[in-house]
Amino acid sequence: MAEVRSACAAAEAAFDVYRTTDTGDRAAFLERIGEEILALGDELIVTAMRESGLPRARLEGERGRTVGQLRLFAGVLRRGDWMGLRVDPVPAGETPSARADLRLRRIPLGPVAVFGASNFPLAFSTAGGDTASALAAGCPVVVKGHPAHPATGAMVADAIRKAVRASGLPSGVFANLTGPGIELGASLVTDPAIAAVGFTGSRAGGLALVKLAQAREIPIPVFAEMSSVNPVLLLPGALRARGEAIGATFVGSLTMGAGQFCTNPGLLLAIEGDGLDAFVSAASRVVSEASPQTMLTPAIHHAYEASVEALRKHGEVTALAQGPAAESASAGRAAFFSTSGKAFLADKALAHEVFGASSLLVRCADEAELRAVVAACEGQLTMTLQMDDGDTALAARLVPLLERKCGRIVVNGWPTGVEVTHAMVHGGPFPATSDGRSTSVGSLAIDRFLRPVSYQNFPPALLPAVLRDDAGLPRLVNGIPAA
Amino acid sequence: MAEVRSACAAAEAAFDVYRTTDTGDRAAFLERIGEEILALGDELIVTAMRESGLPRARLEGERGRTVGQLRLFAGVLRRGDWMGLRVDPVPAGETPSARADLRLRRIPLGPVAVFGASNFPLAFSTAGGDTASALAAGCPVVVKGHPAHPATGAMVADAIRKAVRASGLPSGVFANLTGPGIELGASLVTDPAIAAVGFTGSRAGGLALVKLAQAREIPIPVFAEMSSVNPVLLLPGALRARGEAIGATFVGSLTMGAGQFCTNPGLLLAIEGDGLDAFVSAASRVVSEASPQTMLTPAIHHAYEASVEALRKHGEVTALAQGPAAESASAGRAAFFSTSGKAFLADKALAHEVFGASSLLVRCADEAELRAVVAACEGQLTMTLQMDDGDTALAARLVPLLERKCGRIVVNGWPTGVEVTHAMVHGGPFPATSDGRSTSVGSLAIDRFLRPVSYQNFPPALLPAVLRDDAGLPRLVNGIPAA
Repeated sequence: MAEVRSACAAAEAAFDVYRTTDTGDRAAFLERIGEEILALGDELIVTAMRESGLPRARLEGERGRTVGQLRLFAGVLRRGDWMGLRVDPVPAGETPSARADLRLRRIPLGPVAVFGASNFPLAFSTAGGDTASALAAGCPVVVKGHPAHPATGAMVADAIRKAVRASGLPSGVFANLTGPGIELGASLVTDPAIAAVGFTGSRAGGLALVKLAQAREIPIPVFAEMSSVNPVLLLPGALRARGEAIGATFVGSLTMGAGQFCTNPGLLLAIEGDGLDAFVSAASRVVSEASPQTMLTPAIHHAYEASVEALRKHGEVTALAQGPAAESASAGRAAFFSTSGKAFLADKALAHEVFGASSLLVRCADEAELRAVVAACEGQLTMTLQMDDGDTALAARLVPLLERKCGRIVVNGWPTGVEVTHAMVHGGPFPATSDGRSTSVGSLAIDRFLRPVSYQNFPPALLPAVLRDDAGLPRLVNGIPAA
Repeated sequence: MAEVRSACAAAEAAFDVYRTTDTGDRAAFLERIGEEILALGDELIVTAMRESGLPRARLEGERGRTVGQLRLFAGVLRRGDWMGLRVDPVPAGETPSARADLRLRRIPLGPVAVFGASNFPLAFSTAGGDTASALAAGCPVVVKGHPAHPATGAMVADAIRKAVRASGLPSGVFANLTGPGIELGASLVTDPAIAAVGFTGSRAGGLALVKLAQAREIPIPVFAEMSSVNPVLLLPGALRARGEAIGATFVGSLTMGAGQFCTNPGLLLAIEGDGLDAFVSAASRVVSEASPQTMLTPAIHHAYEASVEALRKHGEVTALAQGPAAESASAGRAAFFSTSGKAFLADKALAHEVFGASSLLVRCADEAELRAVVAACEGQLTMTLQMDDGDTALAARLVPLLERKCGRIVVNGWPTGVEVTHAMVHGGPFPATSDGRSTSVGSLAIDRFLRPVSYQNFPPALLPAVLRDDAGLPRLVNGIPAA
């Protein structure tokens, strides 16, 4: 694929120039990308609405989030702690030969390939979180845009290229490749210039990229965010106190964006007891009234329908409710099912993600069965506790189990709505992601694209400026924080 | 392998107890291990001398380093920044529903398998850097001891077990498995309880473990430190000013520990010019007088001899010097070769590691060829510049290239002698290690065994104590450092 090679070679050629830009300039460049995206005006929103079927308010919010995360990383760059600076100077009075002067900083890995997601045409696509964090780290980016929204991607790519030119950066800092099929993606991941990969999408897609990356002559890391059913544990006190109210807010989270979120609550876990039936009937009623929503692509809609149908036909699964029949052929109807803890434990297929507004309630006999069901779950992006004060002891017993299973634990909220902040983790143990030691949302996402380098006995004239004594940046000196 | 399963099951059972120990108690436990190792007294040194053939002074130094790095991690634990705490509180005046309270900490991955190295029977083995950093992170450790020093490993394992008991910890926190062959190691890496692997050894061994770890139902990270020839660049000014002196210090680094260091200077790069011949003749003279040294095992000695013989027979390689004939059959003779830049670029085999006191000088025609040779090198643990003030401009042009090729750059020193400090990186791009984003030496090594978890809207009673407002630990609050 000539266009892949050409984009990757340009990214490689731009890398040394780009990574050595002043971090203040790099911060301004990220902010400029945000400004250029805003300058696209309503045409961007209308284009994304047309291509994705998502409503205006959602896409306007997503645009705000996209610009906001570029600004977040600009702030991170200006503070400087992302470099992880460490200095172990030779103690005064010691001859230099007694111990070496050692200084450490993190440098970017190299050009990064970013695979845009279908479900966030802005915030997880061309200028999304992977792109923003890779550019912040000092890595040129080659995007493979999602074929579901090529025009949206092209507009955003133009905005980024404008910012590249306005910032006086080499054009190889950013490229946007489009095209369907897997050949383009495979060429990109196996191109020798690519040093890391960011991906948001299906498990099959993510695992295929991981395999390609591991088989390279020089293997590279793949940060693939793949699948999650985001179990929500409805604890007994919460159900007793407000089972009905929980039912209504649950369906709000379930049907948001036609359920096409990585953090969609696809699994509910509860212990049999008071309030559970009230929850079920409230949730069922709201599901049965939920308007069908256009799904992202016909293929996604088709896969959703097939998965819902499989649950409907499952001998151990009860269909509790379904949204009204849709007028449009590609509109998804919400669906709500239940099964027993025993049946869930007996059939791994019941733990699989259904991408869309479908959720399965697992009714557990007791705490032991609830624990067994949690333990049987695969690695997740999130797990959630709906709890009251009286549930605290039970929740405290569960948290150590939940910590090992996911990247974020939510109390009395819903997993949808991933805030872009410093303390956010949008990641989790395999297979939620291919590398549970990372996040793809929030400022910590920059860590994925950096590696440490140590400089021993460097004369000040040769030392990277950020490691000189007078750099004025946050760092550890002999392990102790200092500025 | 029943003993593997049993050790891993015990490690898994101990994990939740161990990871939730007070970090001050965990620090004291690490220090206690150091004390118990010291309490083994001279018998440990004598045993290690017998098994490894290494001299007393070296092993006493290695013991000091082993105890020192346990103490280093104890200090890291007490400071608390290893947890990477981040708090994004709900701003005062905002209703909780406007934005979530998000708090992040890093938690340990789970039980870690550690493969001891042949060449450091103490500092990279049973209680070595991988074990110390994994235990510090809160991970139980299952060691596969190197078969070259089973008695040394057993003594150190006893010391660790004593510290486990004295600290009131579950016995599953530590296990030491011994046995030759690869079956034991394969069982360990594929055991479902194991969450990460630390390895120091050959490239073939490391890559085999990586493959096993990636093929698991739940893949796990492998931190394998594998091979490096540690290129040393002799810049023209330094050669002119002190070519002869550099020759002598070079051989000191080359022959240290019979050359059996990961950071042994196996490759020298120079541009033809004044001083190079003085360097060559000085280095050749010292090599020809270097006493043969017993190598770690007969197999290692045999492989060394075969590699040296292959260089000797290579049509484009000149044998410059060889150490005196050895009296003992397993003693290694130092060897020094040279070749041209052109020949080096034409034959990848010349870049391969020779484990032992052999080094190859590549004579480059000019700066362009020097750069080409550096670019042709694989990822390395270290690269070194021998330079004078007059070389600064050339060095500054080279550093961006060296940064991309290695984990540590040394100026006017030698790569051997890896200090255990906060700013040390003992790591580097593939194939120096399997994951260039990490270090196996120094306090940053703890990062390998941690992953971030985010806690959203947790009531204080349920929040991990270290994330409460009154925890008094170093953390970022809305991205800004605070204590």
